[in-house]
Amino acid sequence: MRSIRVPGFKFAGVACGIKKTRRKDLALIFSERPAVAAALFTTNWVKAAPVIVGMRHIKRGLVQAVVINSGVANACTGAQGLRDAEVMCRDVASCLDIDAGLVLPSSTGLIGVPLPMDKIRSGIEKAADLLSEDSFSQAARAILTTDRDIKTSSAGCRVEGKKVVVAGMAKGAGMIAPKMATMLAYIMTDAAVEPRCLRAMLRRAVAETFNAITVDGDMSTNDTVLFMANGVAGNSPIKSGSREEDILFSAAREVMETLALKLVEDGEGATKVVEIRVLGSRSSAEAKKVAYTVATSQLVKTAFFGEDPNYGRIMAAIGRAEVPIKPDRVDIFFDGVTVVRRGAGVNAAETEAGRVLKQPSFTVRINLRQGNAAASVWTSDLTHDYVRLNSAYRT
Amino acid sequence: MRSIRVPGFKFAGVACGIKKTRRKDLALIFSERPAVAAALFTTNWVKAAPVIVGMRHIKRGLVQAVVINSGVANACTGAQGLRDAEVMCRDVASCLDIDAGLVLPSSTGLIGVPLPMDKIRSGIEKAADLLSEDSFSQAARAILTTDRDIKTSSAGCRVEGKKVVVAGMAKGAGMIAPKMATMLAYIMTDAAVEPRCLRAMLRRAVAETFNAITVDGDMSTNDTVLFMANGVAGNSPIKSGSREEDILFSAAREVMETLALKLVEDGEGATKVVEIRVLGSRSSAEAKKVAYTVATSQLVKTAFFGEDPNYGRIMAAIGRAEVPIKPDRVDIFFDGVTVVRRGAGVNAAETEAGRVLKQPSFTVRINLRQGNAAASVWTSDLTHDYVRLNSAYRT
Repeated sequence: MRSIRVPGFKFAGVACGIKKTRRKDLALIFSERPAVAAALFTTNWVKAAPVIVGMRHIKRGLVQAVVINSGVANACTGAQGLRDAEVMCRDVASCLDIDAGLVLPSSTGLIGVPLPMDKIRSGIEKAADLLSEDSFSQAARAILTTDRDIKTSSAGCRVEGKKVVVAGMAKGAGMIAPKMATMLAYIMTDAAVEPRCLRAMLRRAVAETFNAITVDGDMSTNDTVLFMANGVAGNSPIKSGSREEDILFSAAREVMETLALKLVEDGEGATKVVEIRVLGSRSSAEAKKVAYTVATSQLVKTAFFGEDPNYGRIMAAIGRAEVPIKPDRVDIFFDGVTVVRRGAGVNAAETEAGRVLKQPSFTVRINLRQGNAAASVWTSDLTHDYVRLNSAYRT
Repeated sequence: MRSIRVPGFKFAGVACGIKKTRRKDLALIFSERPAVAAALFTTNWVKAAPVIVGMRHIKRGLVQAVVINSGVANACTGAQGLRDAEVMCRDVASCLDIDAGLVLPSSTGLIGVPLPMDKIRSGIEKAADLLSEDSFSQAARAILTTDRDIKTSSAGCRVEGKKVVVAGMAKGAGMIAPKMATMLAYIMTDAAVEPRCLRAMLRRAVAETFNAITVDGDMSTNDTVLFMANGVAGNSPIKSGSREEDILFSAAREVMETLALKLVEDGEGATKVVEIRVLGSRSSAEAKKVAYTVATSQLVKTAFFGEDPNYGRIMAAIGRAEVPIKPDRVDIFFDGVTVVRRGAGVNAAETEAGRVLKQPSFTVRINLRQGNAAASVWTSDLTHDYVRLNSAYRT
């Protein structure tokens, strides 16, 4: 696999001893010029220190460097945590000779533990020395915690006849819920984009990708999605409503969808990726609510793990979504197989339905037959490995 | 243990072949005279046929017999399911020579499967023959599905100088969520109570007991809580606002609380019972919302299983409850041990906190410090056995 490159961006990923395992735990992303930037953060009332600092820095709309450490989340760390997050930015700024306000910090890992600032500082110095256009995947590796593998994606498109790139990296295996962003994701392009247009593109793409997945329904204190456009491609800045916006949006959405599905695929303990598709709803908000309730039901997720076509648990979850429905209109399909027709179980289809569930990936289609709106949520199964990983996480 | 008796009530529990295991699967409860009755049913939009029929029959406010089968839920069974539930009532009525409208039906078990009506009919006949004042626990056994043991409770009190009894039986191990009733529970007293007073007592007691527990956050299609007062004690019917109401309410609440805690204790795969107590909230509704979010968090529940004092996951769950909080005011205690003070982790307490979590039962106290309201939710841990039981339920 060729390494991902985005003109004008450099990357580094190093091990500085935050993780006991000696794995990479500090990443640096640097743009040769300040990039127009937009970000979305967790809506959790409990926000990690780097999120609070990042929300402050992003207000200028420009980011030139991102520093990310894994292993320690710098959340629930009080005033010291805020100071530490600021110091991280200042250390990066002085190594790279830029303004500290142009640095966006992120942390991920254990909550409640203070950052080991000596290690962080030496990691930043090491990373700054190693910055290179070819180190995209090294950075992508340094941001991981319980992830099984790196998550990267890229797409190309043409803007004003110029070839531009959109590329992204993400991490996240637990605390994945479809409510504003999802763990850490950094999307970069060399296209020039107007700030307002960039913000709108990010919001729209996140709603359809990172905000439509769930692993465990828990929401992190550190979620951050950042979109940077450094304009090195030399096009005239893309405006809202233009044809160029559509083109770049498609590429960005594709990159984010790929990353989002990789997050579900790599969900803690997951062995399956399941699309819950709700159709025939009165509004897409109601469709999403029903899809989300099914997608987070423990009983539905354990049935997926057991490859048990237990449509009864799906019906029970649909019915508690706090969306008025007419049960005797509901149809449910596992891929092409009808398992519920007009609210009643089709037991003859059980063997066939069981075969669908043996696949690593399939779609549960729920037709409420009371309108024309639809929505999808992607989820994983709930497995022994999920319990093993999360009951033994710190020990 | 002496068997529970409630004057004027007779019970039976038999095996009629609905379950493949030859365990008891049909229960009958009979009152020698029509009892004043109140019931609460699932708020799931998908309601099982016996719930729909039961909601119709309870309108009269009188119940003389209850028939319950386990093994098959008679949910998602369409028009045939409704007819079957009605036939169950008629069969009971003809065996006992009462009006079919005085029979309340319940079913629990697999969703989507039709009731085996021949077996049900022979079970009803057998049970009617065996009705006895001493068979309370036989009936309690016949209503179980994945429960490890029967759940019964009784309490006595004095009304107008007369000794009266309140007794109850319940079943439920999965699909336990604090939203209106919880699986099946039947509460009986020989006291005489006015209909309006009985309804109010049931609503109030359920809010504080069955509606304050969670095992998996899933809600059943069959939930039913029934409270019957047959008046055999001979007191003058208890009125709302009277001293007698307080006395009987205390006894009824005690019975329901004991049953509710047994449901959590026997939650599928559970090894621990944990009270999530939220204090210092602006309203008890907000307190319950926060407590419920913590109590259903997969990451919190797996940490309980791992006996890991991971307060970070609790903070993250508090923050996503959609209740505005000030994170830097929050205190968290595991029993007497402070693990978070003013939003920051107290890591020195980790060993001590770990000892608390090794107990089979403990309290997580969360003080939001923004008001005077409080609420509790009782929950269990999320274990390997939960996943094993629910991924292999039907196979």
